[in-house]
Amino acid sequence: MVIPTDARGWARLIDHTLLKPEATAEQIDRLCDECIENDFVAACVNPVWVERAAARLDGAATRVCSVAGFPLGASLAEIKAAEASRAVRQGATEIDMVINIGALTGGDAQLVTRDIASVVDAVKTLDERVLVKVILETAVLDERQIVQGCRCTAEAQADFVKTSTGMHPAGGARVEHVALLRKHAAPLKVKAAGGIRDLRIARAMLEAGADRLGMSASVAVLAQLRNA
Amino acid sequence: MVIPTDARGWARLIDHTLLKPEATAEQIDRLCDECIENDFVAACVNPVWVERAAARLDGAATRVCSVAGFPLGASLAEIKAAEASRAVRQGATEIDMVINIGALTGGDAQLVTRDIASVVDAVKTLDERVLVKVILETAVLDERQIVQGCRCTAEAQADFVKTSTGMHPAGGARVEHVALLRKHAAPLKVKAAGGIRDLRIARAMLEAGADRLGMSASVAVLAQLRNA
Repeated sequence: MVIPTDARGWARLIDHTLLKPEATAEQIDRLCDECIENDFVAACVNPVWVERAAARLDGAATRVCSVAGFPLGASLAEIKAAEASRAVRQGATEIDMVINIGALTGGDAQLVTRDIASVVDAVKTLDERVLVKVILETAVLDERQIVQGCRCTAEAQADFVKTSTGMHPAGGARVEHVALLRKHAAPLKVKAAGGIRDLRIARAMLEAGADRLGMSASVAVLAQLRNA
Repeated sequence: MVIPTDARGWARLIDHTLLKPEATAEQIDRLCDECIENDFVAACVNPVWVERAAARLDGAATRVCSVAGFPLGASLAEIKAAEASRAVRQGATEIDMVINIGALTGGDAQLVTRDIASVVDAVKTLDERVLVKVILETAVLDERQIVQGCRCTAEAQADFVKTSTGMHPAGGARVEHVALLRKHAAPLKVKAAGGIRDLRIARAMLEAGADRLGMSASVAVLAQLRNA
């Protein structure tokens, strides 16, 4: 991908994100307004805020992204699928789900694939254009597990593989993990998220092969770009 | 509560806990075996492990505790209720749910109560003896919000109010918060969890009024007690 040089091009690669649990309605509204002002591709919010964000973003070019089984991925597949479906019915057109991490670390790739497929099937039945991004939590995986996670994601016919929740104490996106996803995830796209705090890190993620960035510091990063 | 002096008495106050998402089946089995050896009151695991833990603990005095809407509490009430019900059907007899934290910080106490009541009603319909513990995430709340959270929990007829998920970057249980819950939660019981790493902290939590402790370092704490 050619890395854009202008703020508008960058904004179309950024999921402007607010997932901390203590966020209030007022903060969600501000996130949405920043999305409209900057033309971010998506506003990423928790399920309890999807309806509100969808109303606020009605008519805007910014999509509503919600999460399923977030951030542990340790909910049953049927619950992740129900959560994702509900979010889509309330206006989300992108779902970031977390895999069954323990199944992957324990070597049960079939269970990982089935879990992802439950969510993909549930939302694509409602609307085939909904995008599903699959969070591997790469910081707790070894290289072999990351590659396996890409295979499971592709087999389940999701749209993106994503590095991190941004909430695991082991850390967020690393450049080498993004490059690994880029290498093994085709034809899937790659989203980098977690710890992308400034323009330098954001640019490194894009150079490593990310198609989409998840971050909270989105407005500050665009300001850095304009002042660069 | 009189604080027990022996390991057996302590064990009946401890939810032996493993909620990190990368935990494997083998680690869950070990957790269960430690529960049987030490007679811990409950094994606290993520939803994907309830069925396995229930089978492993069949016939033991240790109960299976699962979580709902964990750790963000930002799932819709109906999803938390479905997740809790499913866990109970699979063998859990205790559910630790997280409140809609953003509703509490935003001042919508009615929504907080309704959210808790959804889970309480769903599981008590299945089996009225199932215990529901309600996690407030006290580290991100002020004193007024904590007191309000106790009121909502009592109104929704849950069984316990609990300090923390142990996963929020703002931190886990603090003695002053446990004392506050103790003061305002009656007739509810109080569970302290998050950062209870050693016997000194565990004892302080009990002295402040905790009826139950959630911890991962449970076996080490009992060893410290035996060697004290």
